Amino acid sequence: MTTNPNIVSSNGRVYKYPTQPVVVLCIDGCEPDYITQAIQAGVAPNLDRMLSKGTSLIGDCVVPSFTNPNNLSIVTGVPPAVHGICGNYFLDTSVGKEVMMNDPSYLRAGTLLAAFSRAGAKVAVVTAKDKLRTLLGHEMQGICFSAEKADQATMANGGIDDVCALVGKPVPSVYSADLSEFVFAAGVKLLEQHRPDLMYLSTTDYVQHKCAPGTPGANAFYEMMDAYLGEMDALGAIIALTADHGMSPKTDAAGKPKIVFLQEVMDELAGAGKACVILPITDPYVVHHGALGSFATVYLPADAPAKELAESLRAVVGIEVVLTREEAAERFELPRDRIGDLVVVSDHLTVIGTRASEHDLSGLTVPLRSHGGLSEQKVPLLFNRQLQGVSPARRLRNFDIFDLALNHVPVTTP
Amino acid sequence: MTTNPNIVSSNGRVYKYPTQPVVVLCIDGCEPDYITQAIQAGVAPNLDRMLSKGTSLIGDCVVPSFTNPNNLSIVTGVPPAVHGICGNYFLDTSVGKEVMMNDPSYLRAGTLLAAFSRAGAKVAVVTAKDKLRTLLGHEMQGICFSAEKADQATMANGGIDDVCALVGKPVPSVYSADLSEFVFAAGVKLLEQHRPDLMYLSTTDYVQHKCAPGTPGANAFYEMMDAYLGEMDALGAIIALTADHGMSPKTDAAGKPKIVFLQEVMDELAGAGKACVILPITDPYVVHHGALGSFATVYLPADAPAKELAESLRAVVGIEVVLTREEAAERFELPRDRIGDLVVVSDHLTVIGTRASEHDLSGLTVPLRSHGGLSEQKVPLLFNRQLQGVSPARRLRNFDIFDLALNHVPVTTP
Repeated sequence: MTTNPNIVSSNGRVYKYPTQPVVVLCIDGCEPDYITQAIQAGVAPNLDRMLSKGTSLIGDCVVPSFTNPNNLSIVTGVPPAVHGICGNYFLDTSVGKEVMMNDPSYLRAGTLLAAFSRAGAKVAVVTAKDKLRTLLGHEMQGICFSAEKADQATMANGGIDDVCALVGKPVPSVYSADLSEFVFAAGVKLLEQHRPDLMYLSTTDYVQHKCAPGTPGANAFYEMMDAYLGEMDALGAIIALTADHGMSPKTDAAGKPKIVFLQEVMDELAGAGKACVILPITDPYVVHHGALGSFATVYLPADAPAKELAESLRAVVGIEVVLTREEAAERFELPRDRIGDLVVVSDHLTVIGTRASEHDLSGLTVPLRSHGGLSEQKVPLLFNRQLQGVSPARRLRNFDIFDLALNHVPVTTP
Repeated sequence: MTTNPNIVSSNGRVYKYPTQPVVVLCIDGCEPDYITQAIQAGVAPNLDRMLSKGTSLIGDCVVPSFTNPNNLSIVTGVPPAVHGICGNYFLDTSVGKEVMMNDPSYLRAGTLLAAFSRAGAKVAVVTAKDKLRTLLGHEMQGICFSAEKADQATMANGGIDDVCALVGKPVPSVYSADLSEFVFAAGVKLLEQHRPDLMYLSTTDYVQHKCAPGTPGANAFYEMMDAYLGEMDALGAIIALTADHGMSPKTDAAGKPKIVFLQEVMDELAGAGKACVILPITDPYVVHHGALGSFATVYLPADAPAKELAESLRAVVGIEVVLTREEAAERFELPRDRIGDLVVVSDHLTVIGTRASEHDLSGLTVPLRSHGGLSEQKVPLLFNRQLQGVSPARRLRNFDIFDLALNHVPVTTP
């Protein structure tokens, strides 16, 4: 046993060492109204009770409001300009190829989870999709596995054996609410049987991409979540919940997706094939959103008039904000070398595609809901404790959640 | 009988004279997702059918996304900079008093409804709340009454007697879904018995302020509306539906309203009582929103540093946009003389109040939903006909709805 230090530093931030288990949950795509409506419908009694004695705040996530940049911001406590992960997918100009940004070699900052594990804390991480596991668990000692590949976790690769037996559930389908339920169920079992000092649980937004807040499918998800939160609360954990991003309908009133095919627009504006549109939402799991989000970045030929093209793009119906690389890096705190010459954000009902021919929408069995833009930047920051010392004037971010949970929850003596 | 002209001009726009009844509906607070979700839930079969053979578009409403500015824009075809009505309520600097803007003396443009009636068309207008009746019916010959005061309509003041007998319903409560239902029911009866050439129906957002898209209360409203639309469609009307504004939750995840008390902020920034915050949402019917919307305008003392104060306000958590009078007049097409020195818009989860002590929130029995900002600017534009000749590059506004319904629906010979 190491002697616990009083504080742990990571990426220039300082965190108090937990004296009771702290569970931080990142609920993928959790637009705040999902929780409001679930409470209204009476299906989230534990959340209702916890919030009446705890704290409910709203914070801003990172733009692009996508999963990987935000999960990495949460576990590093810093924006993508520092940790380097600004999408699921990017154009690696060093090799001239479009690649997934899943590999830890792209990570430019260590995680606070790794820092806590080095300091002697028992740390556990459970993610829904496997794509996040290696990034979140980078250089961390402790337990780390995904629901998607729960059966492949071993003591050697995940600090734990036989996860399905522990959880009492089979490996769920990657396209299901069960994938997230497995994460919650595992969190409860880990809390009971391993009692980590610090646990990070990250779900998938399969349900949120399909169901609007307050509708039966959404309420069923939050009712399920609520029961597990109730168990964690009863086990004495400090619970801190946020989201990687919100979620908006991206259709007209008839339910037809509203899409700006930006590569087609750029082909007209800059010449066929001259510009290259990158959609950082792209990942191997696109069935539920067809790789359509509200954020894109555009690489231009060296001689292209970036500011004029930006001005032309601003006039396109459905486009909300167009920034040059420098403006975007500044405003959204993004790494300059991993975004294109332009950053394009669409409005709250519109997504950006490349070309119509490149998006398979056959998986969209219900009206498209997605994220990526400014309209999905507001996320909940919920705690089952009263926070202390948080200035009302402070602009809160989802990546302040560990600071809030560790530094602003008053220590109680049991 | 006058001979019908081929075209009617109003405020610099030209409209074809209708050859079959045209019904334009302004569904108050109809965020597009209300309709998407109602169709998804299977409770709007008529809309589903009409849109599968008709047209579904999204347009921008006027900011401030409030009822009066938008209803007046719709019936004049022009923005508030031209028609003058930029709120429910304003500071009349000519008399130095805060007053309601309900009186036609504030109107600076004639309505296209009046123009059509002068040209010989049979025109009918039914509004939910009486506050809009005199503005919408200004200088118009024909039928014009409100559901709220349906029993007070006479041939002399509204071009019709005995409305409750015609509709077969009693005067509804001003705070109810029934108020809007009365409008739809009256529309169907007028279509059957008076067959107006042009009819404008404008509802109230009582339900939308309370219920999120897809929740039982909302679906019940749209199911009711859908049945009346089915009747109008069966009666051969060209149906064109839009909204005055959208609707967003304005709370944290726990359902607590997120409010920036702007007068308190200004008192700190500019000195107590130096600045005057006006909330143009203010009207006599505030029970369901507590006079809380996402748009405010601020009058400053002559020597106040407007640009510096604007910069300070931009840093306030919950504030999305702050513009000087000139910037706001330009960007939102507002009358310079009827807005303050600053225009302040809050974000999609936040509303603006004056002082905590000046807002009675006791009427908020469910989590606050409201409007007024940019986040409520997207509205549906729906037609039970295929439109022709509308460029995909055109930025559509809700106040283009008469243009679209009259000029872009191909004439069919019966």
